[in-house]
Amino acid sequence: MKTHTKYLWFTTKKEKEFVNITDEVQEAVKESGVKEGLALVSAMHITSGIFVNDEEPGIKQDLMEWAEKVAPDLPNYLHHRTGESNGDAHLKSTLFHHEITVPITKGQLDFGPWQQIFYAEFDGQRKKRVIIKILGE
Amino acid sequence: MKTHTKYLWFTTKKEKEFVNITDEVQEAVKESGVKEGLALVSAMHITSGIFVNDEEPGIKQDLMEWAEKVAPDLPNYLHHRTGESNGDAHLKSTLFHHEITVPITKGQLDFGPWQQIFYAEFDGQRKKRVIIKILGE
Amino acid sequence: MKTHTKYLWFTTKKEKEFVNITDEVQEAVKESGVKEGLALVSAMHITSGIFVNDEEPGIKQDLMEWAEKVAPDLPNYLHHRTGESNGDAHLKSTLFHHEITVPITKGQLDFGPWQQIFYAEFDGQRKKRVIIKILGE
Repeated sequence: MKTHTKYLWFTTKKEKEFVNITDEVQEAVKESGVKEGLALVSAMHITSGIFVNDEEPGIKQDLMEWAEKVAPDLPNYLHHRTGESNGDAHLKSTLFHHEITVPITKGQLDFGPWQQIFYAEFDGQRKKRVIIKILGE
Repeated sequence: MKTHTKYLWFTTKKEKEFVNITDEVQEAVKESGVKEGLALVSAMHITSGIFVNDEEPGIKQDLMEWAEKVAPDLPNYLHHRTGESNGDAHLKSTLFHHEITVPITKGQLDFGPWQQIFYAEFDGQRKKRVIIKILGE
Repeated sequence: MKTHTKYLWFTTKKEKEFVNITDEVQEAVKESGVKEGLALVSAMHITSGIFVNDEEPGIKQDLMEWAEKVAPDLPNYLHHRTGESNGDAHLKSTLFHHEITVPITKGQLDFGPWQQIFYAEFDGQRKKRVIIKILGE
Protein backbone atom coordinates (compact mmCIF):
# COMPACT_ATOMS: atom_id res chain seq x y z
CA MET A 1 0.00 0.00 0.00
CA LYS A 2 1.19 3.50 -0.81
CA THR A 3 0.16 6.78 0.80
CA HIS A 4 1.03 10.32 -0.21
CA THR A 5 0.25 13.68 1.41
CA LYS A 6 0.42 17.10 -0.16
CA TYR A 7 -0.70 20.55 0.95
CA LEU A 8 -1.82 23.35 -1.36
CA TRP A 9 -1.74 26.97 -0.20
CA PHE A 10 -4.03 29.76 -1.39
CA THR A 11 -4.28 33.48 -0.86
CA THR A 12 -7.08 34.57 -3.17
CA LYS A 13 -7.29 38.16 -4.41
CA LYS A 14 -11.06 38.26 -3.94
CA GLU A 15 -12.99 37.49 -0.77
CA LYS A 16 -15.01 34.89 -2.69
CA GLU A 17 -13.45 32.95 -5.57
CA PHE A 18 -13.37 29.51 -7.20
CA VAL A 19 -9.87 28.20 -8.04
CA ASN A 20 -9.48 25.26 -10.46
CA ILE A 21 -7.03 22.81 -8.81
CA THR A 22 -7.47 19.82 -11.14
CA ASP A 23 -3.87 19.98 -12.41
CA GLU A 24 -2.47 20.21 -8.88
CA VAL A 25 -4.45 17.12 -7.79
CA GLN A 26 -3.37 15.21 -10.93
CA GLU A 27 0.25 16.19 -10.19
CA ALA A 28 -0.07 14.85 -6.63
CA VAL A 29 -1.47 11.58 -8.02
CA LYS A 30 1.58 11.30 -10.30
CA GLU A 31 3.99 12.02 -7.41
CA SER A 32 2.30 9.34 -5.27
CA GLY A 33 3.03 6.54 -7.73
CA VAL A 34 -0.47 5.20 -6.98
CA LYS A 35 -2.03 3.45 -9.98
CA GLU A 36 -5.31 2.29 -8.38
CA GLY A 37 -6.73 4.14 -5.38
CA LEU A 38 -8.52 7.08 -3.85
CA ALA A 39 -7.53 10.71 -3.33
CA LEU A 40 -9.13 12.82 -0.63
CA VAL A 41 -9.09 16.55 -1.40
CA SER A 42 -10.16 18.50 1.68
CA ALA A 43 -10.23 22.14 2.75
CA MET A 44 -8.50 22.66 6.12
CA HIS A 45 -10.75 25.62 6.97
CA ILE A 46 -14.41 26.03 7.89
CA THR A 47 -15.05 28.87 5.49
CA SER A 48 -14.06 27.16 2.25
CA GLY A 49 -15.06 24.07 0.29
CA ILE A 50 -14.09 21.64 -2.46
CA PHE A 51 -16.41 20.69 -5.30
CA VAL A 52 -16.47 19.26 -8.81
CA ASN A 53 -18.11 21.12 -11.67
CA ASP A 54 -17.48 22.65 -15.08
CA GLU A 55 -14.64 25.03 -16.09
CA GLU A 56 -17.09 27.42 -17.78
CA PRO A 57 -17.18 31.07 -16.64
CA GLY A 58 -20.98 31.33 -16.82
CA ILE A 59 -21.73 28.37 -14.57
CA LYS A 60 -18.98 29.40 -12.14
CA GLN A 61 -20.69 32.78 -11.73
CA ASP A 62 -24.10 31.07 -11.51
CA LEU A 63 -22.76 28.85 -8.72
CA MET A 64 -21.37 31.84 -6.80
CA GLU A 65 -24.66 33.76 -7.14
CA TRP A 66 -26.55 30.64 -6.05
CA ALA A 67 -24.30 30.31 -2.97
CA GLU A 68 -25.16 33.92 -2.10
CA LYS A 69 -28.88 33.28 -2.60
CA VAL A 70 -29.03 30.09 -0.48
CA ALA A 71 -26.53 31.22 2.19
CA PRO A 72 -26.58 35.03 2.06
CA ASP A 73 -24.02 37.43 3.52
CA LEU A 74 -26.13 39.02 6.28
CA PRO A 75 -25.02 41.25 9.18
CA ASN A 76 -26.98 39.55 11.94
CA TYR A 77 -25.56 36.01 12.25
CA LEU A 78 -25.04 35.03 15.89
CA HIS A 79 -21.46 34.11 14.99
CA HIS A 80 -20.78 37.82 14.52
CA ARG A 81 -21.03 38.37 18.29
CA THR A 82 -17.47 36.94 18.39
CA GLY A 83 -16.25 39.88 16.31
CA GLU A 84 -16.20 37.83 13.09
CA SER A 85 -18.20 38.92 10.03
CA ASN A 86 -17.97 35.71 8.00
CA GLY A 87 -21.06 33.77 9.13
CA ASP A 88 -22.18 33.35 5.53
CA ALA A 89 -18.85 31.70 4.64
CA HIS A 90 -19.47 28.97 7.26
CA LEU A 91 -22.89 28.29 5.73
CA LYS A 92 -21.56 28.34 2.16
CA SER A 93 -18.82 25.86 3.17
CA THR A 94 -21.53 23.54 4.51
CA LEU A 95 -23.63 23.97 1.35
CA PHE A 96 -20.74 23.11 -1.02
CA HIS A 97 -19.18 20.53 1.38
CA HIS A 98 -15.57 20.85 2.50
CA GLU A 99 -14.14 17.74 0.84
CA ILE A 100 -14.37 15.30 -2.05
CA THR A 101 -12.91 11.85 -2.68
CA VAL A 102 -11.85 11.12 -6.25
CA PRO A 103 -10.96 7.84 -7.99
CA ILE A 104 -7.53 6.99 -9.42
CA THR A 105 -7.32 4.44 -12.26
CA LYS A 106 -4.13 3.59 -14.17
CA GLY A 107 -2.33 6.46 -12.42
CA GLN A 108 -4.86 9.11 -13.53
CA LEU A 109 -7.89 10.87 -12.06
CA ASP A 110 -10.73 8.72 -13.39
CA PHE A 111 -13.04 11.56 -14.40
CA GLY A 112 -15.79 12.19 -16.93
CA PRO A 113 -15.03 14.63 -19.76
CA TRP A 114 -16.26 17.79 -18.00
CA GLN A 115 -15.30 17.14 -14.39
CA GLN A 116 -12.92 19.68 -12.85
CA ILE A 117 -11.96 20.14 -9.19
CA PHE A 118 -12.45 23.56 -7.57
CA TYR A 119 -11.29 25.09 -4.33
CA ALA A 120 -14.17 27.31 -3.17
CA GLU A 121 -12.94 30.28 -1.16
CA PHE A 122 -15.69 32.09 0.74
CA ASP A 123 -13.51 34.15 3.12
CA GLY A 124 -10.25 34.79 1.32
CA GLN A 125 -7.55 37.40 0.94
CA ARG A 126 -5.54 35.50 3.54
CA LYS A 127 -3.48 32.28 3.65
CA LYS A 128 -5.62 29.12 3.49
CA ARG A 129 -4.73 25.45 3.00
CA VAL A 130 -6.02 22.26 1.31
CA ILE A 131 -4.80 18.72 2.02
CA ILE A 132 -4.54 15.98 -0.62
CA LYS A 133 -4.23 12.48 0.90
CA ILE A 134 -3.78 9.60 -1.53
CA LEU A 135 -4.20 5.89 -0.72
CA GLY A 136 -3.74 2.96 -3.06
CA GLU A 137 -1.21 0.74 -4.78
CA MET B 1 -4.64 -4.67 -0.57
CA LYS B 2 -7.36 -5.18 -3.15
CA THR B 3 -8.87 -2.65 -5.53
CA HIS B 4 -11.84 -3.02 -7.85
CA THR B 5 -13.36 -0.65 -10.41
CA LYS B 6 -16.79 -0.83 -11.99
CA TYR B 7 -18.79 1.55 -14.17
CA LEU B 8 -22.58 1.81 -14.24
CA TRP B 9 -24.37 3.30 -17.24
CA PHE B 10 -27.69 5.15 -17.18
CA THR B 11 -30.06 6.52 -19.79
CA THR B 12 -33.05 7.70 -17.76
CA LYS B 13 -36.48 8.06 -19.37
CA LYS B 14 -37.16 11.31 -17.55
CA GLU B 15 -35.02 14.43 -17.53
CA LYS B 16 -34.93 14.28 -13.71
CA GLU B 17 -35.05 10.97 -11.90
CA PHE B 18 -33.66 9.12 -8.86
CA VAL B 19 -32.41 5.57 -9.55
CA ASN B 20 -31.82 3.17 -6.64
CA ILE B 21 -28.38 1.56 -7.22
CA THR B 22 -27.88 -0.16 -3.85
CA ASP B 23 -27.96 -3.66 -5.37
CA GLU B 24 -25.44 -2.72 -8.07
CA VAL B 25 -23.03 -1.32 -5.46
CA GLN B 26 -23.46 -4.40 -3.24
CA GLU B 27 -22.79 -6.59 -6.31
CA ALA B 28 -19.55 -4.66 -7.03
CA VAL B 29 -18.49 -5.16 -3.39
CA LYS B 30 -19.05 -8.90 -3.79
CA GLU B 31 -17.04 -8.98 -7.06
CA SER B 32 -14.16 -7.12 -5.41
CA GLY B 33 -13.59 -9.78 -2.76
CA VAL B 34 -13.03 -6.95 -0.27
CA LYS B 35 -14.15 -7.86 3.27
CA GLU B 36 -13.08 -4.65 5.07
CA GLY B 37 -12.77 -1.39 3.20
CA LEU B 38 -14.30 1.62 1.50
CA ALA B 39 -16.30 2.04 -1.71
CA LEU B 40 -16.42 5.36 -3.53
CA VAL B 41 -19.57 5.82 -5.65
CA SER B 42 -19.19 8.88 -7.85
CA ALA B 43 -21.10 10.44 -10.75
CA MET B 44 -18.83 11.12 -13.73
CA HIS B 45 -20.94 14.10 -14.84
CA ILE B 46 -21.52 17.59 -13.50
CA THR B 47 -25.30 17.45 -13.81
CA SER B 48 -25.95 14.42 -11.62
CA GLY B 49 -25.29 13.33 -8.05
CA ILE B 50 -25.13 10.41 -5.64
CA PHE B 51 -26.89 10.39 -2.28
CA VAL B 52 -28.19 8.09 0.44
CA ASN B 53 -31.81 8.21 1.56
CA ASP B 54 -35.01 6.18 1.88
CA GLU B 55 -36.66 3.97 -0.78
CA GLU B 56 -40.07 5.53 -0.12
CA PRO B 57 -41.95 7.15 -3.05
CA GLY B 58 -43.19 10.12 -0.98
CA ILE B 59 -39.78 11.24 0.30
CA LYS B 60 -38.24 10.71 -3.16
CA GLN B 61 -40.79 13.14 -4.63
CA ASP B 62 -40.27 15.50 -1.68
CA LEU B 63 -36.52 15.46 -2.36
CA MET B 64 -37.03 16.21 -6.06
CA GLU B 65 -39.44 19.08 -5.30
CA TRP B 66 -36.98 20.41 -2.71
CA ALA B 67 -34.17 20.29 -5.31
CA GLU B 68 -36.37 22.36 -7.61
CA LYS B 69 -37.18 24.85 -4.85
CA VAL B 70 -33.55 25.37 -3.71
CA ALA B 71 -31.96 25.21 -7.20
CA PRO B 72 -34.78 26.11 -9.62
CA ASP B 73 -34.89 25.53 -13.37
CA LEU B 74 -34.72 29.14 -14.60
CA PRO B 75 -34.14 30.45 -18.13
CA ASN B 76 -31.59 33.14 -17.28
CA TYR B 77 -28.53 31.33 -15.92
CA LEU B 78 -25.31 32.74 -17.36
CA HIS B 79 -24.34 29.18 -18.33
CA HIS B 80 -27.12 29.30 -20.93
CA ARG B 81 -25.10 31.77 -23.02
CA THR B 82 -23.13 28.68 -24.13
CA GLY B 83 -26.28 27.26 -25.75
CA GLU B 84 -26.95 24.89 -22.82
CA SER B 85 -30.24 24.99 -20.88
CA ASN B 86 -29.22 22.86 -17.89
CA GLY B 87 -27.85 25.47 -15.45
CA ASP B 88 -30.20 24.21 -12.74
CA ALA B 89 -28.80 20.68 -13.09
CA HIS B 90 -25.29 21.96 -12.25
CA LEU B 91 -26.66 23.62 -9.10
CA LYS B 92 -28.71 20.56 -8.11
CA SER B 93 -25.60 18.37 -8.54
CA THR B 94 -23.74 20.67 -6.13
CA LEU B 95 -26.66 20.64 -3.66
CA PHE B 96 -26.86 16.82 -3.55
CA HIS B 97 -23.08 16.32 -3.93
CA HIS B 98 -21.67 14.19 -6.72
CA GLU B 99 -20.19 11.33 -4.66
CA ILE B 100 -20.43 9.29 -1.50
CA THR B 101 -18.01 6.93 0.26
CA VAL B 102 -19.59 3.90 1.91
CA PRO B 103 -18.18 1.41 4.43
CA ILE B 104 -17.65 -2.32 3.77
CA THR B 105 -17.66 -4.74 6.73
CA LYS B 106 -17.53 -8.55 6.43
CA GLY B 107 -17.97 -8.24 2.67
CA GLN B 108 -21.21 -6.24 2.90
CA LEU B 109 -22.25 -2.58 2.72
CA ASP B 110 -22.30 -1.63 6.41
CA PHE B 111 -25.56 0.33 6.34
CA GLY B 112 -28.35 1.21 8.74
CA PRO B 113 -31.76 -0.38 8.09
CA TRP B 114 -33.17 2.36 5.84
CA GLN B 115 -30.08 3.49 3.93
CA GLN B 116 -30.28 3.12 0.16
CA ILE B 117 -27.95 4.56 -2.50
CA PHE B 118 -29.45 6.71 -5.28
CA TYR B 119 -28.11 8.01 -8.55
CA ALA B 120 -29.64 11.48 -8.97
CA GLU B 121 -30.13 12.38 -12.61
CA PHE B 122 -30.86 16.07 -13.20
CA ASP B 123 -30.22 16.21 -16.96
CA GLY B 124 -31.05 12.80 -18.35
CA GLN B 125 -32.49 11.10 -21.40
CA ARG B 126 -28.90 10.51 -22.55
CA LYS B 127 -26.03 8.17 -21.67
CA LYS B 128 -24.43 8.97 -18.32
CA ARG B 129 -21.93 7.11 -16.14
CA VAL B 130 -21.08 6.36 -12.48
CA ILE B 131 -17.80 4.92 -11.19
CA ILE B 132 -17.53 2.55 -8.22
CA LYS B 133 -13.97 2.29 -6.84
CA ILE B 134 -13.39 -0.17 -4.00
CA LEU B 135 -10.32 -0.31 -1.73
CA GLY B 136 -9.66 -2.73 1.11
CA GLU B 137 -8.60 -6.23 2.00
CA MET C 1 -2.84 -2.50 5.39
CA LYS C 2 -4.85 -1.95 8.56
CA THR C 3 -8.59 -1.46 8.93
CA HIS C 4 -10.58 -0.54 12.01
CA THR C 5 -14.33 -0.20 12.59
CA LYS C 6 -16.09 1.55 15.43
CA TYR C 7 -19.72 2.48 16.08
CA LEU C 8 -20.88 5.48 18.08
CA TRP C 9 -24.39 5.56 19.59
CA PHE C 10 -26.46 8.67 20.26
CA THR C 11 -29.75 9.42 21.97
CA THR C 12 -29.99 13.20 21.88
CA LYS C 13 -32.15 15.07 24.38
CA LYS C 14 -33.43 17.45 21.73
CA GLU C 15 -35.10 16.55 18.44
CA LYS C 16 -32.47 18.59 16.60
CA GLU C 17 -28.95 18.90 17.95
CA PHE C 18 -25.29 19.06 16.87
CA VAL C 19 -22.91 16.81 18.84
CA ASN C 20 -19.14 17.39 18.65
CA ILE C 21 -17.54 13.96 18.04
CA THR C 22 -13.97 15.05 17.22
CA ASP C 23 -12.49 13.37 20.31
CA GLU C 24 -14.32 10.10 19.62
CA VAL C 25 -13.00 10.04 16.04
CA GLN C 26 -9.46 10.85 17.20
CA GLU C 27 -9.75 8.05 19.78
CA ALA C 28 -10.79 5.59 17.03
CA VAL C 29 -7.78 6.69 14.96
CA LYS C 30 -5.52 5.96 17.93
CA GLU C 31 -7.11 2.52 18.48
CA SER C 32 -6.62 1.64 14.81
CA GLY C 33 -2.86 2.05 14.92
CA VAL C 34 -3.09 3.71 11.48
CA LYS C 35 -0.40 6.37 10.96
CA GLU C 36 -1.23 7.33 7.36
CA GLY C 37 -4.71 6.84 5.97
CA LEU C 38 -8.34 7.84 5.70
CA ALA C 39 -11.25 7.69 8.16
CA LEU C 40 -14.84 7.59 6.94
CA VAL C 41 -17.33 8.98 9.47
CA SER C 42 -20.86 8.20 8.32
CA ALA C 43 -24.36 8.45 9.81
CA MET C 44 -26.24 5.14 9.57
CA HIS C 45 -29.61 6.92 9.34
CA ILE C 46 -31.36 9.00 6.72
CA THR C 47 -32.41 11.76 9.11
CA SER C 48 -28.96 12.75 10.39
CA GLY C 49 -25.68 13.98 8.95
CA ILE C 50 -21.98 14.49 9.59
CA PHE C 51 -20.19 17.78 8.93
CA VAL C 52 -17.09 19.77 9.82
CA ASN C 53 -17.33 23.28 11.23
CA ASP C 54 -16.46 25.46 14.21
CA GLU C 55 -17.06 24.71 17.94
CA GLU C 56 -18.58 28.15 18.51
CA PRO C 57 -22.13 28.38 19.96
CA GLY C 58 -23.19 31.24 17.67
CA ILE C 59 -22.30 29.57 14.39
CA LYS C 60 -23.81 26.28 15.58
CA GLN C 61 -27.14 28.05 16.15
CA ASP C 62 -26.75 29.90 12.84
CA LEU C 63 -26.24 26.55 11.08
CA MET C 64 -29.33 25.06 12.73
CA GLU C 65 -31.46 28.09 11.82
CA TRP C 66 -30.11 27.95 8.27
CA ALA C 67 -31.04 24.25 8.04
CA GLU C 68 -34.57 25.19 9.08
CA LYS C 69 -34.71 28.00 6.52
CA VAL C 70 -33.44 25.94 3.56
CA ALA C 71 -35.21 22.67 4.50
CA PRO C 72 -38.16 23.73 6.71
CA ASP C 73 -40.24 21.55 9.01
CA LEU C 74 -43.58 21.63 7.15
CA PRO C 75 -46.70 19.50 7.71
CA ASN C 76 -47.41 18.65 4.08
CA TYR C 77 -44.46 16.55 2.85
CA LEU C 78 -45.61 13.55 0.83
CA HIS C 79 -43.47 11.37 3.11
CA HIS C 80 -45.97 12.10 5.89
CA ARG C 81 -48.60 9.95 4.16
CA THR C 82 -46.63 6.99 5.63
CA GLY C 83 -47.47 8.21 9.15
CA GLU C 84 -44.03 9.81 9.63
CA SER C 85 -43.65 13.50 10.46
CA ASN C 86 -39.90 13.88 9.80
CA GLY C 87 -39.81 14.85 6.09
CA ASP C 88 -37.72 17.91 6.91
CA ALA C 89 -35.07 15.72 8.61
CA HIS C 90 -34.57 13.77 5.35
CA LEU C 91 -34.01 17.04 3.48
CA LYS C 92 -31.69 18.45 6.16
CA SER C 93 -29.65 15.21 6.06
CA THR C 94 -29.25 15.69 2.29
CA LEU C 95 -28.32 19.37 2.75
CA PHE C 96 -25.59 18.65 5.32
CA HIS C 97 -24.55 15.33 3.70
CA HIS C 98 -24.51 12.11 5.70
CA GLU C 99 -20.78 11.41 5.70
CA ILE C 100 -17.29 12.86 5.63
CA THR C 101 -13.86 11.38 4.92
CA VAL C 102 -11.00 12.80 6.99
CA PRO C 103 -7.22 12.50 6.57
CA ILE C 104 -4.89 10.77 9.05
CA THR C 105 -1.21 11.86 9.17
CA LYS C 106 1.33 10.64 11.75
CA GLY C 107 -1.46 8.93 13.68
CA GLN C 108 -3.55 12.11 14.08
CA LEU C 109 -6.53 13.72 12.35
CA ASP C 110 -4.79 16.08 9.90
CA PHE C 111 -7.03 19.11 10.51
CA GLY C 112 -6.79 22.87 10.31
CA PRO C 113 -6.91 24.80 13.60
CA TRP C 114 -10.70 25.31 13.72
CA GLN C 115 -11.98 22.08 12.18
CA GLN C 116 -14.26 20.02 14.42
CA ILE C 117 -16.46 17.04 13.47
CA PHE C 118 -20.18 17.18 14.29
CA TYR C 119 -22.93 14.60 14.31
CA ALA C 120 -26.05 16.43 13.08
CA GLU C 121 -29.20 14.98 14.59
CA PHE C 122 -32.38 16.13 12.86
CA ASP C 123 -34.82 13.54 14.26
CA GLY C 124 -33.50 12.54 17.67
CA GLN C 125 -34.67 11.53 21.12
CA ARG C 126 -34.13 7.91 20.07
CA LYS C 127 -31.15 5.58 19.54
CA LYS C 128 -29.10 6.41 16.43
CA ARG C 129 -25.73 5.21 15.17
CA VAL C 130 -22.59 6.44 13.37
CA ILE C 131 -19.90 4.22 11.81
CA ILE C 132 -16.20 5.10 11.74
CA LYS C 133 -14.22 3.02 9.22
CA ILE C 134 -10.46 3.57 9.10
CA LEU C 135 -8.11 2.42 6.33
CA GLY C 136 -4.37 2.89 6.13
CA GLU C 137 -1.02 1.69 7.37
